[in-house]
Amino acid sequence: MTTIGEMGEDALIAAFAPRLPVTDSEILGPGDDAAVVAVDGDLVVSSDILVQDVHFRMDWSSPEDVGWRAAMQNLADIDAMGAVPTALQVTLAAPASLDADWVLRFADGLREACEPHGVGVVGGDLSGARDVIVSVTVLGETHGTEPITRADALPGQLVAVSAPLGAAAAGYVQLAEGREIDAESIGLFRRPRPRIGAGLEAALHGATALMDISDGLLRDAARIARASEVGIEILGADVPLHEGARLVAIELQVDPRPWALTGGEDHAMLAVFPRASMVPGGWTVVGETTDAFAGIRVDGEEPDRLGWDHFGA
Amino acid sequence: MTTIGEMGEDALIAAFAPRLPVTDSEILGPGDDAAVVAVDGDLVVSSDILVQDVHFRMDWSSPEDVGWRAAMQNLADIDAMGAVPTALQVTLAAPASLDADWVLRFADGLREACEPHGVGVVGGDLSGARDVIVSVTVLGETHGTEPITRADALPGQLVAVSAPLGAAAAGYVQLAEGREIDAESIGLFRRPRPRIGAGLEAALHGATALMDISDGLLRDAARIARASEVGIEILGADVPLHEGARLVAIELQVDPRPWALTGGEDHAMLAVFPRASMVPGGWTVVGETTDAFAGIRVDGEEPDRLGWDHFGA
Repeated sequence: MTTIGEMGEDALIAAFAPRLPVTDSEILGPGDDAAVVAVDGDLVVSSDILVQDVHFRMDWSSPEDVGWRAAMQNLADIDAMGAVPTALQVTLAAPASLDADWVLRFADGLREACEPHGVGVVGGDLSGARDVIVSVTVLGETHGTEPITRADALPGQLVAVSAPLGAAAAGYVQLAEGREIDAESIGLFRRPRPRIGAGLEAALHGATALMDISDGLLRDAARIARASEVGIEILGADVPLHEGARLVAIELQVDPRPWALTGGEDHAMLAVFPRASMVPGGWTVVGETTDAFAGIRVDGEEPDRLGWDHFGA
Repeated sequence: MTTIGEMGEDALIAAFAPRLPVTDSEILGPGDDAAVVAVDGDLVVSSDILVQDVHFRMDWSSPEDVGWRAAMQNLADIDAMGAVPTALQVTLAAPASLDADWVLRFADGLREACEPHGVGVVGGDLSGARDVIVSVTVLGETHGTEPITRADALPGQLVAVSAPLGAAAAGYVQLAEGREIDAESIGLFRRPRPRIGAGLEAALHGATALMDISDGLLRDAARIARASEVGIEILGADVPLHEGARLVAIELQVDPRPWALTGGEDHAMLAVFPRASMVPGGWTVVGETTDAFAGIRVDGEEPDRLGWDHFGA
C-alpha cells in the first residue's frame, strides 16, 4: 500500500485526474486556479458534504460507493430544480495515512455515477484532515426554462413522489445489525439510484413545487409547506414502500412506515401538481396541500418526528 | 452559550442566512435544492477547503478571520484567471458542541470579505463533523474575455509578482512562538488581503500566464513552468519582502528569504509578461522564463524545497 502522504499531492492529482469523468461543457478543466465551464441559460448550483462516520463508514461503503453517492445526491439536487447537471467540483480532505488506492477508486465511483449523464468533474481541492471529507458542488444549467422551487405550491394541489421510499433506511438498518436480508436495499443505501430526469419530467408536467427527498419525506415535505405557505396532509397508507424494505421489516418484525416517512437518502423526487391529470405515469400521489393548517400532518395528526437533523440527537 | 446541536439545523440556518452577503447575480438564493445565478460569459469556478488544525487554529483565528480567509482565497482564485467573482457556495461541517455564535461570526467574516466586491453567498451545506471544516466554491464570470491560464508563458518573458511576499509566513511564525513583533503580518496571516483586481489588471496588460501564490512562490512558479513547458529562473534578491516580515526576521535573527520564497497564503498574483513595458505599475519583476532548462531555479540553483505539500511532511 502507498499512502497519499507518501505519494504527495502532485503525484496523487496526476493519478487521480485521468480517472475523472469529463463533460462537453468544459472549456478548461482541472489544474489551473479555476475551471471554465459553458453555461446555457442560468447557472444552477448546489453543494453537499459527506463526512466519514457521519454520512458514510469506511467499513460499510467502498471508495467507489462514496464517490458514487457524493455525485448522485448532487445530480439529484439539480434535477430537483428541473434543470440539467453538467459539472462537479469535488474536494477531498483525508489523513496522510489514507491508501492512495482509496482515492483512485473514489474517482472511479464519481465516473460511474456521472458518465451516463454527461457530467464531468472540472475541478476541486485536496487537503489533509483527520477524517475523510468529500465536499461536492454541482453545476447545472436551465436551458432558458424557469427553475422549479419549493415555494410555489398552492392549496388544494396534489403531493406526489417519483418512486417507492424506505430502501436506504432498510439498508442502513441491515448494516447496523450485521444482517443481509435484502441485498437490493443494502445496495441502495450504499449507492442511491434516483432516476435523474424525474425532476425535469415533473417540471415539464407543470409541477408547482419540486425537491428531492434527502432528509426524509416528512421533513422535506415540511420544507415545501413552509416555503409555499401551505399545509401538507400526507396519507400514510398511500406512501409507496420499497419492496425490499417491506421484506426486511417482516423479517425483523418491525414497522417499516417510519423508514418511508422519515428515512432520508432515497433521493426520490417530491413534487406538487395542480391536478391528477398532470401527475406523470409512475409517480404516486401521497397527499395534498391545504390552507386549513400550516406544516405537515400524517393522517390528520402532527408527526412526533420529522426526520434527519444534521446536528440533532 | 448555545451549541449548534441545541439550536438545530433549521434554526441555525435561519440565524445564519441573513448575515450572509448578497450579489446582484443571484436569481435564487439559499434555501432551495440549488441556487440560480446569472452568468455573463463563461462560468469560472474554483474550490478551496479549510480544515481546523490544518489550515487554521481556533485559538489563533477568530470565526470572522476564518470566514474572511475562506472567502478571500477563493476570490483570489477567480481574479487569478483574469475573471470577476460573483458568488460563493459555502459548506460548513462542525461538531454539535460548537458555539452557535461561532457560526454567526463566521458569516460576518464572509460578508466583510465579500461585500466590497459585490460577491454574495448563494448556497451551501451544513453537516456534523469531528472538526470544523469550511469548504467554499467560488463562481465567477469572464464577461466574454479569455481566461488567463498557467499554460501560455513563452521562453524569454518576465515573471512578476503583484505585492511583497512573506507576511503570512512571518505571522505564522510569531503565533507559533507566542510573540507579537509585527502586528500587521500577524493580521495578514489571519486575514490575507490580496488586492482583488490585480489578476484582471495583469490580464488587461497582456499577461501570458497568471496564478495566485497560495502554496509559495517557488512551488507555484513551478506549476506555471510545468504547464507552460518552460523553465523559470528566479532572482532571489529581486523577490520583494514584506516589510513586517523583514522586521520579524531581524528580531528573531533568522533569514526571511524562505518566507518569501516558500511561505504560502499571501495570495499575491504571479504573472508572466512578454516584456518590461507590459508589467503594471506596482508589480515587481522577480525572474524570467527560459528554454534552457525545465522547472525552477533560484540564482542558478535548483531549490531544495519548493513549499507546501498538502499531504507531505
